[in-house]
Amino acid sequence: MSVSSFAVEISKVRDGVPESLEDSVAVEEPLEIRLGYTTPDGRATRSISITMRTPGNDRELAAGFLFSEAIVQRGSDIVAIETCGPPAPDSGNHNVVRVDLAADVTVDLGRLQRHFYTTSSCGVCGKTSLDALRVNGAKPLDGQGISFSRSVLTRIPHALRAAQHTFDATGGLHAAAAFDSKGDLAVIMEDVGRHNAVDKVIGSLLLNNEVPAHELGLMVSGRASFELMQKALVAGMPLLAAVSAPSSLAVQLAQEFNVSLIGFLRGDTFNIYAGEERITE
Amino acid sequence: MSVSSFAVEISKVRDGVPESLEDSVAVEEPLEIRLGYTTPDGRATRSISITMRTPGNDRELAAGFLFSEAIVQRGSDIVAIETCGPPAPDSGNHNVVRVDLAADVTVDLGRLQRHFYTTSSCGVCGKTSLDALRVNGAKPLDGQGISFSRSVLTRIPHALRAAQHTFDATGGLHAAAAFDSKGDLAVIMEDVGRHNAVDKVIGSLLLNNEVPAHELGLMVSGRASFELMQKALVAGMPLLAAVSAPSSLAVQLAQEFNVSLIGFLRGDTFNIYAGEERITE
Repeated sequence: MSVSSFAVEISKVRDGVPESLEDSVAVEEPLEIRLGYTTPDGRATRSISITMRTPGNDRELAAGFLFSEAIVQRGSDIVAIETCGPPAPDSGNHNVVRVDLAADVTVDLGRLQRHFYTTSSCGVCGKTSLDALRVNGAKPLDGQGISFSRSVLTRIPHALRAAQHTFDATGGLHAAAAFDSKGDLAVIMEDVGRHNAVDKVIGSLLLNNEVPAHELGLMVSGRASFELMQKALVAGMPLLAAVSAPSSLAVQLAQEFNVSLIGFLRGDTFNIYAGEERITE
Repeated sequence: MSVSSFAVEISKVRDGVPESLEDSVAVEEPLEIRLGYTTPDGRATRSISITMRTPGNDRELAAGFLFSEAIVQRGSDIVAIETCGPPAPDSGNHNVVRVDLAADVTVDLGRLQRHFYTTSSCGVCGKTSLDALRVNGAKPLDGQGISFSRSVLTRIPHALRAAQHTFDATGGLHAAAAFDSKGDLAVIMEDVGRHNAVDKVIGSLLLNNEVPAHELGLMVSGRASFELMQKALVAGMPLLAAVSAPSSLAVQLAQEFNVSLIGFLRGDTFNIYAGEERITE
């Protein structure tokens, strides 16, 4: 069991008057992901990432991270995934996850590096970001199939909030959930980072062989950025709903790749930025 | 002038009734940072980063990014910094910034790479993250000197909110500001990303030769994570205040490096997690 909240002594100031009390904060600790994979010379192990995250569901986080970064394409690419190493001396959490890939998976670690080192002769813009998605194999989603009713959508934030246990203690965590067209939550995850919460949700679906998840929507507690839209698209999820605002590039991606995008989902109100045909009465 | 908001047609659903209207969303576009620097073989140019950001203050963002990543140590390391390339075809924004470093600056681009590729024999934990800061030269701040009164702190969120012009239009931007002990905002920046907003603030201070900023506090609109605390510490700022919750590692960093950390700064209320001696009546 991971420790996801942490007691601290604070001074709370109300109307100018300080008072000492004990408070809880959400745990943020590094997670190291080590990859075991096959090279022409045999098996290799390499540390490929250190991510700041809230401990818990680290296997799912590692799987979702590798999927989002296109290191793995499907659940069966992963043959073993386990926490390893001694517990951290300060918290007792295990902060290393080792992922072993199937022998036939070809690994291109240059992909990770290209996030930092990239060249372009004519500069970059929103269009080049969308083009890059296409080059990496992302295709527009099918407009047929699943739909979500308005009343299901307005129920999801309450369901999400009710399931956020660590948030209750700390007031300081993002959440993400996958939900079906009846409004039931299939997976819910919390993390100090929104991207991690989404990676945990998608990693959980991946490890259960439920990706592509064409029947599930994705709900996030914060804003909808390009990167979160990209994660939903790559996982085949036809709808992303956010409590807060979407960015311009999130809207453009949703329009071009036919993902339904809902923003400002609060109370009985929401905005539809793309893919309105999937939203029913 | 950069375009930082973008008009979209949306369907707004209120109490189950949809209505078509025009809305604004915050622009998110990639910014490419190119570095010109001296190698043993002469001058070189390399594209070192693509960051999703809201256009505007791109020079400051590039400078703050390079400072946070320890590629530059002071304003004088940068001899020229300018947007370049043609405007993006879709938005008209310039999305490339070229930064030229002084001839005597030694560049270690391996630093950027090490964010992804790193090894450790005994795993990682919060303590190793703090130790890594020390190895990179971060030192605890001096406890003497500047202090901030309670009434100044409770005024800052209002001042920040009043100065957030793009937020007014879009409801979708983070903000960061540097403020002095009288409560005046020295710099305020907005961005879809909290880290970018902070990099823009610190980059602005750096380009004005105001780093280390031992007299200024840093306010952010969201949560206080390890990474934001790290940026404040490296810029020498003695106080970080956040509208929302801090993480455990942010609290530990603040305690060990003697930075004052304020969370849940709302209305007349706030929590002091570290460095209470700088907070006066």
